[in-house]
Parts: sequence; structure tokens; C-alpha cells
Amino acid sequence: MRWSRYFRSKEESDALERVEKVVVFGGGSFGTAMGVSLARQNKVGQVTMLLRDPYLCKDINEQHCNTRYLKDYELPPNVNATTSAAEALAGAQFAIHAVPVQHTRAFLQGIKDLIPPGLPIVSVSKGIEVTTGQLMSEVIPSVLGKKQPTVYLSGPSFAKEVMMGRPTGIVAASKDKALARSVQRLFASPDMRVNTTTDVIGVEICGSLKNVLAIAAGIVEGLDLGPNAMAALVAQGCSEIRWLATKMGAKAATISGLSGLGDIMLTCYGSLSRNRTVGVRLGQGERLPDILASSSQVAEGVATAAVVVNLARKYRVQLPVLTAVAQVVDGHITAEQAVFEIMNLPQIEER
Amino acid sequence: MRWSRYFRSKEESDALERVEKVVVFGGGSFGTAMGVSLARQNKVGQVTMLLRDPYLCKDINEQHCNTRYLKDYELPPNVNATTSAAEALAGAQFAIHAVPVQHTRAFLQGIKDLIPPGLPIVSVSKGIEVTTGQLMSEVIPSVLGKKQPTVYLSGPSFAKEVMMGRPTGIVAASKDKALARSVQRLFASPDMRVNTTTDVIGVEICGSLKNVLAIAAGIVEGLDLGPNAMAALVAQGCSEIRWLATKMGAKAATISGLSGLGDIMLTCYGSLSRNRTVGVRLGQGERLPDILASSSQVAEGVATAAVVVNLARKYRVQLPVLTAVAQVVDGHITAEQAVFEIMNLPQIEER
Repeated sequence: MRWSRYFRSKEESDALERVEKVVVFGGGSFGTAMGVSLARQNKVGQVTMLLRDPYLCKDINEQHCNTRYLKDYELPPNVNATTSAAEALAGAQFAIHAVPVQHTRAFLQGIKDLIPPGLPIVSVSKGIEVTTGQLMSEVIPSVLGKKQPTVYLSGPSFAKEVMMGRPTGIVAASKDKALARSVQRLFASPDMRVNTTTDVIGVEICGSLKNVLAIAAGIVEGLDLGPNAMAALVAQGCSEIRWLATKMGAKAATISGLSGLGDIMLTCYGSLSRNRTVGVRLGQGERLPDILASSSQVAEGVATAAVVVNLARKYRVQLPVLTAVAQVVDGHITAEQAVFEIMNLPQIEER
Repeated sequence: MRWSRYFRSKEESDALERVEKVVVFGGGSFGTAMGVSLARQNKVGQVTMLLRDPYLCKDINEQHCNTRYLKDYELPPNVNATTSAAEALAGAQFAIHAVPVQHTRAFLQGIKDLIPPGLPIVSVSKGIEVTTGQLMSEVIPSVLGKKQPTVYLSGPSFAKEVMMGRPTGIVAASKDKALARSVQRLFASPDMRVNTTTDVIGVEICGSLKNVLAIAAGIVEGLDLGPNAMAALVAQGCSEIRWLATKMGAKAATISGLSGLGDIMLTCYGSLSRNRTVGVRLGQGERLPDILASSSQVAEGVATAAVVVNLARKYRVQLPVLTAVAQVVDGHITAEQAVFEIMNLPQIEER
């Protein structure tokens, strides 16, 4: 069921400027869903996905289905796929970058000569590059140059919900206000509301660290500590993200907004989250290598957790919950020990 | 299963000063749970509940069970009940005020001559008095005088979870820092962590308005709009509470803390919440009078919703979600119309 009737009229939506072609980098579930969200709109002509895997490519073109990540959903006829970057990029007016963070640098380096200097890159990948500690807003310009127009899209948006056409709200962040507004107009649809902001750091930090917090939430669930403990944990984690993010230059209001708190809640309370599932299994006593071996998708929070301890040190801020997750993930302490340590912190004044 | 092993040692907890008697005003589930949490500690001697209902009183004294609100849980032997205010108050060192907000004024007026001037009143009731628009931090002093010591306790704490001894974190708010710390020491236990703050208004506004937001969350659930929409709604509602609360003098950090965001998440995402249940039934098309007629417990958010529109006007702040709930509750619009209106708001810059 589509929820279009709850939104702006289709006529109003279609009156916006026409976009002939959008390219999506990557064939994961979220890139697919965002591409489909665009392809369903009359104002968008073609959505082309750039993939590595020729078999998935074939399935998308012939079966109209992302058989690996979203096998229960049909793709619109104006979504196709190719393994050729030149073909994918030809004529594209926007690029949706949905390659996992840890593979982004190598991916972009491989195609950068084909990317036109003025092509807006709309990154929907969330996380921190482990080898450099960089956010996507540092990684992308370091490969494509600082003049490449970039927008960072984030917010509470499970891919399957977007595929189902259920109401979703996201935030488009860019230092370039006009570009953020053009991405807002691009994605705004009967199913999708888009806010804009210039606080790129705030949006990115939340999008990255919420994955670490989701592992903590999973641990609380796996240990069956109950809803009071879960709410206390997520609120504490949200404060920790705010303390770190504001030291890094983010606005506190971003952390409390749709792409901050909204995404944190979806990830920590939503059973669909991959990171949360990792936490549940850690809480139930499984070891990380066994968990990772049995999952086909990337749990970005596992990589991000390793970087959090460095950020906490660099910005001189205490992050008990996020740091504890890093220690559980790298095997220094068990999930039960982490909970014990956090619960034994001194009782404090609110800040 | 008790989670004591995750907390400070029992010896450390018991080393704190002894409290011979605590009185609990009211026989509802939360007052009972907080009384039981105290009674389980060696440092507390007797917990006496002051009730109106002689039958419930008898059950508590003879069956050691709150047969009306927490029938699945046994009360410790040092919890008893009486209908006599004089008997309940005699020798009490703290009073836990757990009478519903709308009955608080009449209740306190009835017993005020029996309340010693120095007895700390620890209010755990959350909401706004409909007839006056006052918070508990205004109602209690207006009856007992401004010199009566008062503390306002709030945070994510379902009564049943407290009864089960599962980890719970709360906030003790008082203008009197030393008193807040003494209430912190009183409640701190192997199962309970207590933060302190002087931001009484912030704690109270969150504790009240989160009940209204929980109705909105229930509506989203009842309409089956999905987790993306739920996260977007709760984040928006949380922002609205912050906008209003800071205009009323609260600190933004309180709204983002344990008694703000923590309690909002518990209430909006926890299936145990009475207010959320009202919203689910409204979302499914039931009428409010029918819903209220079939529930034995008070959904405080229904009363509070009526006051929100006045507060929004008084403090000149736009609260689309909270105002829409008020309109659904008073029957002006249906739940579906409310969602339609909210989803058609202009797409905005984050703030």
C-alpha cells in the first residue's frame, strides 16, 4: 500500500523540474531503494545502477529485481544496471553514492576520470573510513577534489520501508545551500519528505556513530535488560554523540533532529538494523568473528567502533557507552562486563 | 531475575544513611513500584501507602499484593497500606507523591494540615493540571506553601520493570541541590541509578508532554505507517517539546537527557505505555470516549493534550504534532486527517 494520499498531490510533485538520468553507485539495498524512490517519480527519467557483479546486473535488467538484497520487491521499468562506469555516468545529472564507506576511496579512485567536474555527488553511505578516521565529507573531496559538488543524505530510512512507499523523512546536508535545495526537490515525493541543513559534520557524525550505539542497544536486548534500561542507554548514547559532535563543530540541534535522534531511534529500536542484530548476538554470548561470518551484509558499526576511541581521545571527551562497545567488539571485554562497567559509573548531575 | 550483580555492591548501598519510614501517596502502579524499590533496600525500614480504597488497602496488608494494578507481583513484608493520612504520615521522613495530577490539588488540600512543614515531597506524578495549566512544581507549592521541600522525579521507568528489579535510570530535580542529592541517595540501589538536576521545569515539561507525543506515536502505529515514519515523528515531537520547554525556561540538555529523550523513547516505543495504547486505538479508528470507557487506568496524555494548544499560543511556538494530537483527542479531526496535515507541512531547514 502506498501512502501517497497523505502527502502533497502528485501533480504538485511532478511540476518540479525534469531530471533525465540519475546514476546510483553500488548495488546494495539502500542505494537501490533510493534509486527506486526516484525512478517512481514522473519527474525522473532513468535510474542506472553501477555495479561490480555482472550476475546481479543481469537480474536487475532482466528480472527487474535486486535478487541479492531486495528480492521481494519489483523494480520500476526505468531502473537498469551496468558494470560499465562510462555507460552509467553518461548523461547523468546526479550521482547517488551508495558504496560502503570502507570501499569508497578505492571505488571513486577507479572511476574518477569519468566523473564530470560539475556532477553533484549525493552520498548516502554512512560511517567513518577506518584507515584514515575520515568522514565521507572528507573522503569524497580527497579523491574527487574540493570543487566537486557534494550533498550528504541521512535520516531514519530503512530500505525496505522506502521500497514499500511508506512515509520517510530525510535530511540533505551541504555547505552549498542551493545544491541542498535542488537535492531536496529531487527526492521530495508523495512518500518522502526532505529537510535541508548546512551542518554536514553533524549529519555525518550521527549517521556514523548511531551504528555503534545500535550495537550497544542490541547488547541490552541480547542480555534482556528490559525497556527501562534500553531507554536509559540510548539517551546516554545520544548525549555522548552530542558531546563529541559539538566538539567537532556540529550543531546540537542537528543531533536532536531527524538525521540525529531520528536515525538513532530507528537504528536502536528497529529490528531490521544490521548493527543492532550484531549487538543482540554479542549480548547472547556469540563471538564477533562467528557473527560476521554468518552475515552477508556489512555492519558498518563494527568498523566505526574501532575509530570512536581515537575520536574520544582526540577531542578529549568521555564516551563511556560508545567506548565500551569498541571494547566488546575488539574482544577486550564481554558484553556483560561492559554493562557492569557502565552501570557502575558514578551517579551524576545531568548535563 | 535481579540484575544486582551489574551494579554497585549491596554493602556499599547499605552503608548510606538509614531511613525509618517513607509514605507513598496513592495506590497506583508507579507509586507502588517506587515504594517497593525503596522497601527492598536494607537502608529503608517501612514503606506505608496512603490509599482511598479500603479493599485495596486490605489486599496490600493481608495478601501483600496490589491486586488492582500490579497483581502479578508480591510486595515485600515492610510495605503496608492505610486509609488514614495521620497514620501514614506519622514518622515519615520522605513522602512519595504518586496521586494522578488531576486529583493532586484536592488530595493535598485534604491532608495538608497533617503534613509536617519540613517533610520532603518527592513527586513522581507527571502531567499538567487541566483546570489551571499548572505543572506539579506549581500545584504542590500552591497548596502546601513555597517552603515545603519538593523534588520532582522522572525518567524512563515502567512500573513493572521496576517491580522486576530490572535496571532503571531516573532523574531527581530540585532547586535545592542538597535535597536532590538526598533523594538520589534514598533511591540509588543495585537496580536504580539516579541523576540530579536543578532544571525542574525541563524535567516536568518532558514528563508531561511526552504523554501527548506517545498518543501520536500510537496513532502512527495504529495507521501502520512503518518505522521510518515513527522515527521521523518522534524526532519531530522531541524537537517541538524542546522548542516549547526552552521558551518556558528549561535547559535544552534536559530535553535531550534521561528524563527527556529517555522517557520520550520509552513511552513512544514501549508497548506498555497507556498513552501509546490510546493512540493505537485512535489510529485504528476508535473514538476516544469508547477507548476511555474500556480502560481502568488514567491516560494522562489525554488531559495534557488539551493544555498544549494554550501553551503553544502563550509561548508563541509552532507545535504541529502536539497540536494535531489535541485536535484528534477532542474530535475536531480524525487520525488520518492529522497525518495528512502533518505530512503536508512545508519541507524545511533543520533547526
